[in-house]
Amino acid sequence: MTFLNSVELGAKGQRTLPAAAYCDATVFSQEQSAIFESRWVVAGVAAELAGPGAFMVKQIGKESILVVRDETGTIRAHFNHCRHRGTELCSEASGQLRRTIQCPYHAWTYGLDGKLVGVPDEDQMEDFCRADFGLHSAVCHEWDGLIWVNLNPQPEDFTNFIAPLVGKFTPWNLPQLVKLGERNYDVAANWKLIVQNYSECYHCAVIHPGLVRLSPPKSGGNDLVEGPFLGGFMDVTEPGGSLTCSGRACGAPVGDLTGDHSQRVYYYVLFPNVLLSLHHDYVMVHTLWPLAPDRTKIECVWLFHESSRDQAQWNPEEGIAFWDQTNREDWDICERTQRGVSSSRYEPGPYSNREAMAAAFDRYYLRIMQSPK
Amino acid sequence: MTFLNSVELGAKGQRTLPAAAYCDATVFSQEQSAIFESRWVVAGVAAELAGPGAFMVKQIGKESILVVRDETGTIRAHFNHCRHRGTELCSEASGQLRRTIQCPYHAWTYGLDGKLVGVPDEDQMEDFCRADFGLHSAVCHEWDGLIWVNLNPQPEDFTNFIAPLVGKFTPWNLPQLVKLGERNYDVAANWKLIVQNYSECYHCAVIHPGLVRLSPPKSGGNDLVEGPFLGGFMDVTEPGGSLTCSGRACGAPVGDLTGDHSQRVYYYVLFPNVLLSLHHDYVMVHTLWPLAPDRTKIECVWLFHESSRDQAQWNPEEGIAFWDQTNREDWDICERTQRGVSSSRYEPGPYSNREAMAAAFDRYYLRIMQSPK
Amino acid sequence: MTFLNSVELGAKGQRTLPAAAYCDATVFSQEQSAIFESRWVVAGVAAELAGPGAFMVKQIGKESILVVRDETGTIRAHFNHCRHRGTELCSEASGQLRRTIQCPYHAWTYGLDGKLVGVPDEDQMEDFCRADFGLHSAVCHEWDGLIWVNLNPQPEDFTNFIAPLVGKFTPWNLPQLVKLGERNYDVAANWKLIVQNYSECYHCAVIHPGLVRLSPPKSGGNDLVEGPFLGGFMDVTEPGGSLTCSGRACGAPVGDLTGDHSQRVYYYVLFPNVLLSLHHDYVMVHTLWPLAPDRTKIECVWLFHESSRDQAQWNPEEGIAFWDQTNREDWDICERTQRGVSSSRYEPGPYSNREAMAAAFDRYYLRIMQSPK
Repeated sequence: MTFLNSVELGAKGQRTLPAAAYCDATVFSQEQSAIFESRWVVAGVAAELAGPGAFMVKQIGKESILVVRDETGTIRAHFNHCRHRGTELCSEASGQLRRTIQCPYHAWTYGLDGKLVGVPDEDQMEDFCRADFGLHSAVCHEWDGLIWVNLNPQPEDFTNFIAPLVGKFTPWNLPQLVKLGERNYDVAANWKLIVQNYSECYHCAVIHPGLVRLSPPKSGGNDLVEGPFLGGFMDVTEPGGSLTCSGRACGAPVGDLTGDHSQRVYYYVLFPNVLLSLHHDYVMVHTLWPLAPDRTKIECVWLFHESSRDQAQWNPEEGIAFWDQTNREDWDICERTQRGVSSSRYEPGPYSNREAMAAAFDRYYLRIMQSPK
Repeated sequence: MTFLNSVELGAKGQRTLPAAAYCDATVFSQEQSAIFESRWVVAGVAAELAGPGAFMVKQIGKESILVVRDETGTIRAHFNHCRHRGTELCSEASGQLRRTIQCPYHAWTYGLDGKLVGVPDEDQMEDFCRADFGLHSAVCHEWDGLIWVNLNPQPEDFTNFIAPLVGKFTPWNLPQLVKLGERNYDVAANWKLIVQNYSECYHCAVIHPGLVRLSPPKSGGNDLVEGPFLGGFMDVTEPGGSLTCSGRACGAPVGDLTGDHSQRVYYYVLFPNVLLSLHHDYVMVHTLWPLAPDRTKIECVWLFHESSRDQAQWNPEEGIAFWDQTNREDWDICERTQRGVSSSRYEPGPYSNREAMAAAFDRYYLRIMQSPK
Repeated sequence: MTFLNSVELGAKGQRTLPAAAYCDATVFSQEQSAIFESRWVVAGVAAELAGPGAFMVKQIGKESILVVRDETGTIRAHFNHCRHRGTELCSEASGQLRRTIQCPYHAWTYGLDGKLVGVPDEDQMEDFCRADFGLHSAVCHEWDGLIWVNLNPQPEDFTNFIAPLVGKFTPWNLPQLVKLGERNYDVAANWKLIVQNYSECYHCAVIHPGLVRLSPPKSGGNDLVEGPFLGGFMDVTEPGGSLTCSGRACGAPVGDLTGDHSQRVYYYVLFPNVLLSLHHDYVMVHTLWPLAPDRTKIECVWLFHESSRDQAQWNPEEGIAFWDQTNREDWDICERTQRGVSSSRYEPGPYSNREAMAAAFDRYYLRIMQSPK
């Protein structure tokens, strides 16, 4: 964890990260170990796992993780390979299991909780005890509609970790929302460029003509300004409006949002891999999955109040299409930035005060990367 | 050759190989050097080289090897590049040469035995002697219908090497058979996973419903149980039947097979790269060509008695299609296993007694990899 | 720069380069640093940048370089990324700018000369001085219709460098010619194999039947035989003929070519990346761009006297198509040679006296690679 140790942040006028943070394979490998495989990350939204046996497979760091709701309703995270010959258990990105997880090679069978419950011709195993061969698992918490997973065998205490956010998103009613849209993106840019891009609206006037028509890029303010959770809000100009193709709300109110809440969009970065965008009529959740120094998979889901399914009254696609377009504008400029920072002549450039949240993200990132695990 | 030295095999209850054996680039490179470029491997079946000038090009380890039948009928193995500027000589996978091998760049010309026999404008070469620039060659033996090649400049004596197999395959009449089918496969799995898969039928009930209908997965026994050559037989249930789509024999008897031989299929692994499957009506030969830790090219040919060409009586395609389907079932599960063993949490799992031949293969592999060259 | 130090050239009977020169990633990286990022290379032909704001983007070594004609008519070479967040400025291979270069992310704006001239919300920058954030630039010279660029911060003096060529190409009138054709090629071969191939006609009888019909492969002679600039001429058989599909001239005379000049084609290698082919009716310029040890992008342009646009009299496509075919014949054999020299048994082979210019190129290349930077 020494690679970035020499980066020093100036007293004022902070500069962007060095090229190694975006291009170097060793730094990337350190990030996978020290961040994605060692800290709390969000695997997805709980709304995607409706009942017992519903599962999703996520690559977290270099690991394939099977996230499944067990028969008691608890969400579990198992390493997605059999303890016999190592075969991958679930090959689909998501789906529905029956009461067990069965290996497709020799039919070794596990409970949804990971316990080994069946071995064909078990008498042909020497000195064998089922209890020794349950699935490897990771700790997992369902919190405010998000599924948090930590692959570290000695994970940070979740209650301490999440404390700064407790109650913060309550008005948006996250655990009760339903998923009415999703898009996946494969972006040729480092994951941190994507976070930095989300963290400032200095670029909005140039990149997002549709967005600035609805929400003034210099409006709003930040309420989480240091540490793993960062962000704030921007105003929506039109009374009762939202960020949609038409500018009007596209879904029923997600919760009991009154006053300011109903005339703003809140944007938060949850370190390391969530971008949480709270509108009064829907919530957008990006999760970022670094694949290489210069490549990131982005999963984006849109959550609505269930009554927004009423097509006579609401049109969720108006919010989804608005952000799909805005997302693509962002990914394009992130890819151009990735190409630029790979130059040997690139040197950290000066952040504007309008990029203060990007700078705060960089500070937290460097703190993590510079501290021993 | 020290990478796998620390692997110790338990006294009983042997476990599978560590992840490095399947995923590590250094181990792969050591295998290419210590096994494929230093030991006897099978380049293909002699039936593919019908007469003088018939050739095939094989990548053995990292080397492109031109295997050609010369004018005396002897099969030769030459490194497939010209001694002038290094140009690749034959770019096709197989074909028919005339009496010479001519470089396509400056027309330097070699006999089929590799001797340099022609250089345009030879007077423009300084201090030049043709005898210094014959093709580089490797030792080669045609044995029981198989073409054995060894790239080692000090190859193991072939007679000693092959001694345990002498006479063993005689009843199947291999040198007289003809090739009536072939399939190539590109499999995203380590070559050893493919050998292990071939070495046990514990998986058959789960993976191969078509196979177990014809041949009971717990039938049979092994007759070569330690060392470079491993295998045995399984029974065919239907009297006179074979492994074909219909269950009936699809070709004329390949040789003078009586009693047990006609009611069994024999399966042998010839270390490192051959899977030899002997049926009474045809012989199937897989050759494995590792391309990367996680990628193997598999060439599969089906050999029949010449009289099986008689379409009124026989239908070779029934055996070919049966195994093509069964092969694909195997490659799919090998690919899933490759993905699983790459997890950092994968640890060697316990072999069942029904996987004794896979365990024996692993023992021999480790012996080779742990011994200095 | 020590990798190739052990290569010694024999007193006579020089041999080809060792495999590492064509296959080794470290040697490739050293070439990128020591040659393409440190020496004069040709970025393209000046005819491609017609007036102020016309630009092309070239990858020189690992760097993306924006080559643009400024408002005074001078050609400039800038590193193609913004000094703010590092974003790539121009993403097109070529095009036309207005009076400025504007970053597509936050609209920082530079003059065509690279000076920073505009920053939105500049008051939000702390301790900021525009003069500190001009584009990084490289030295650039327009000479005889070619655009020479040198990324070295301490570049070799251009006047000294170019001295051996001053006046040499004057008869062909290069600065006045216009581009009437171009082709790009992606070739799976090391760039030096492509230069060597261009440097000899020992292969012509085998590879280029169309060429040898028009120009005898043993004709001509060399007039630059040692150093960075190498080459000579070959005869055209047909009086007044040229290298075209029909064998007849396909364009107006490019300059005041009399006597020998009008009955010959001149071929020069300008180290490291130009192949310059001078016909009396057109000029062909190849520029080579190494992408990997075994991969080279080749850009080829055809320049004509402007009056050759007269379709009633001339048909430039006849020269372009002739060489496009001949180029492809060359690239194919270079790719075959690349595959051959990667064998561990490849060893440097003997050059014929008919390959003396290829040998001279190798000598100069080794001199550069063996000398400390």
